[in-house]
Amino acid sequence: MRTILELKTDQGITGISETYGGDKQTAVYENLRERLKGRDVFQLTCLWRDMTAQAAEGDRSQTMFVPGENPVDEPVRAYAAIEIACLDAIGKAWNLPMCDVVGGRARDAAPFSAYLFYKHAGGGGMGSDVREDEYGEALSAESLVRQAKQMVAKYGFKEIKLKGGVLDPDEEIRSIKELRAAFGPKYPLRIDPNCAWSVDTSVRVGRELREELTDGGYLEDPTAELDGMAEVRSRLLAEGIGTPFASNVAVTSFDLVPKAWKKDAVQIVLSDPHYWGGIRKQRQLSELCQVLGLGLSMHSNNHVGVSMMIMAHAGASSPHLTHACDTHYPWQTELDEVVEGGRIQFTEGAVPIPDKPGLGVSLDYDQLARLRERYAKLPYRKRDDEAEMRQHVDPNWRRVLPRW
Amino acid sequence: MRTILELKTDQGITGISETYGGDKQTAVYENLRERLKGRDVFQLTCLWRDMTAQAAEGDRSQTMFVPGENPVDEPVRAYAAIEIACLDAIGKAWNLPMCDVVGGRARDAAPFSAYLFYKHAGGGGMGSDVREDEYGEALSAESLVRQAKQMVAKYGFKEIKLKGGVLDPDEEIRSIKELRAAFGPKYPLRIDPNCAWSVDTSVRVGRELREELTDGGYLEDPTAELDGMAEVRSRLLAEGIGTPFASNVAVTSFDLVPKAWKKDAVQIVLSDPHYWGGIRKQRQLSELCQVLGLGLSMHSNNHVGVSMMIMAHAGASSPHLTHACDTHYPWQTELDEVVEGGRIQFTEGAVPIPDKPGLGVSLDYDQLARLRERYAKLPYRKRDDEAEMRQHVDPNWRRVLPRW
Repeated sequence: MRTILELKTDQGITGISETYGGDKQTAVYENLRERLKGRDVFQLTCLWRDMTAQAAEGDRSQTMFVPGENPVDEPVRAYAAIEIACLDAIGKAWNLPMCDVVGGRARDAAPFSAYLFYKHAGGGGMGSDVREDEYGEALSAESLVRQAKQMVAKYGFKEIKLKGGVLDPDEEIRSIKELRAAFGPKYPLRIDPNCAWSVDTSVRVGRELREELTDGGYLEDPTAELDGMAEVRSRLLAEGIGTPFASNVAVTSFDLVPKAWKKDAVQIVLSDPHYWGGIRKQRQLSELCQVLGLGLSMHSNNHVGVSMMIMAHAGASSPHLTHACDTHYPWQTELDEVVEGGRIQFTEGAVPIPDKPGLGVSLDYDQLARLRERYAKLPYRKRDDEAEMRQHVDPNWRRVLPRW
Repeated sequence: MRTILELKTDQGITGISETYGGDKQTAVYENLRERLKGRDVFQLTCLWRDMTAQAAEGDRSQTMFVPGENPVDEPVRAYAAIEIACLDAIGKAWNLPMCDVVGGRARDAAPFSAYLFYKHAGGGGMGSDVREDEYGEALSAESLVRQAKQMVAKYGFKEIKLKGGVLDPDEEIRSIKELRAAFGPKYPLRIDPNCAWSVDTSVRVGRELREELTDGGYLEDPTAELDGMAEVRSRLLAEGIGTPFASNVAVTSFDLVPKAWKKDAVQIVLSDPHYWGGIRKQRQLSELCQVLGLGLSMHSNNHVGVSMMIMAHAGASSPHLTHACDTHYPWQTELDEVVEGGRIQFTEGAVPIPDKPGLGVSLDYDQLARLRERYAKLPYRKRDDEAEMRQHVDPNWRRVLPRW
């Protein structure tokens, strides 16, 4: 589920944006409509202050939330979507790509990573639109390697991520080892069990994969909370295992970065311009990570072409970006796309910054209307992974942390 | 001594900048001339990377340097001057004030502080241009209060800084107490002895001025180096004295900020866009300080109107700015000014951002030529405080740290 925004200026320019979706998210923007009328697209520092001044205090970790749904982050998420639409409008007014509006690109293309999932067969669309996805079933190390080869061949990715925390850790360890055997050390590997492991299990996996997750790879959110991560880290370091940890769960906002740094709980921050506050905040995070000696990569949620370009500009404009960014884009198809001209193209695993103003894409309103109709027919008004699992896989399924 | 730069774009726009002066500084820009030809004013991220890639490693503290003269910082200083000229050109191309080019202003005027100096009578100009300055002699607490009243009446400053480390600490303590008696607690006070005190003396002064330097005031660089500052801080905290410490000597670059933070050696960073890397780096520092819970104010060196506006835009665009910025501007006169229309005007101690593109000022070429002639007649090719002191005050004078 995604929200698409349009912001119209009095000069007749339309800036666009994409963010997290669902009825509650959309209502936020409906409520902002009047408040934004008449404001100046250049005065974003004040807008940030105004929109985030009332931000609630509270736990910023995303351990128990679907990404982008922590209510504490709502003002920052909303600001991000508006900031990006403003920067798109500015880019169009000045005939300048978005990454150049905010200070100039650090690279001409943003590198992305293959994103592997264990999955049953099927999985695309709903109702009359149900379809097999292009990758098929992947419930073992072998089928996962097949998925990886297919995705790498199609997009040219140079780094590979596995969403773990799904099968028994031993099978996931085996999957990473098989991926390493198939691709060799030139393709850094990362695994992300979404905090599904206990501290002990995390230490065991870190130990088993001490060879495979180094050289540009990482272990992402093996266990919940900064203290858990810090304990795993310290126990692995005591064994001489320096595998870095990445997080988009324990570190989701600026105030958590120095905390994570002090505890040495996280060595690579996974930003997400959609909930960190937009393109300039992505740059700020990039610079903060550089100053603190932390790595930086990017978190992804399901998204379509506008967000693909938001992430590309965010990646291109980040002076410090140490790992290829995540993207769910290979899991979408032409049928899901809302940008004119069809899907965004990758070159050797990277999305080049087009020589066009702003984000560099515009909306296909027919497709947008079709996707809106599809949303109306959905049984959910917000993303609900547990309901999906209970309906299609196991009627008793629920999320348990740690599961192993 | 200052350097004025002009950068001409192929669209016929001229961006201007001002930075530290002297033959060596100027040579840096002469050498950059060819290297900058044909570059894009928007591609500042690459320019930063290219210009600072070869930056030497070394001690970044300014303890033994005149500000802006640490050779380790040369590439960052040079980049800053060029970045600001580029942003001035962009602002002129887009008809947008500089602070709005980089993300929008946090405030419409940048607040500055009165800057008091102990001094002998005289002190303005040289050769045929020698003149009494407007403030006269100030070598005691009483004459300093007179200087403060005169400066506050003229400019409307709301905060007051004393450059200390000049007289015996007891007289400087007395000066601060007299200033507090004269102005009351609504005027926060700060004193900066330029590291002239030992740890013990710093603790003693902190103790004596425990009342006067709180409520928005601070103690700036009482002693040398981060470890010295941290020791003073910890000893004062043990006595229940929380007076914050500011620094532009022990913390002069991004890598030193987390070090200072970890040691709790510095609570307020004094930026200087001229040697921290320009306007966007000033914003980065502002955001870094906010994330780390540090305060932010601004260092000043002698400067004229272009830098006055650089500092105003830097201050206006800093989301987080906790104290009024320093400026030497009250110590210059119409005779020293290089901007068209004469001196920059203050409103209630602040410099308003003019409704003009870029920095909002342009050069007076006649004045610039006169100042260049004056520079040619100077006996020095770089700022040399010791030589000045030996020639005019004490033939045996030299800088000793700590002096007390």
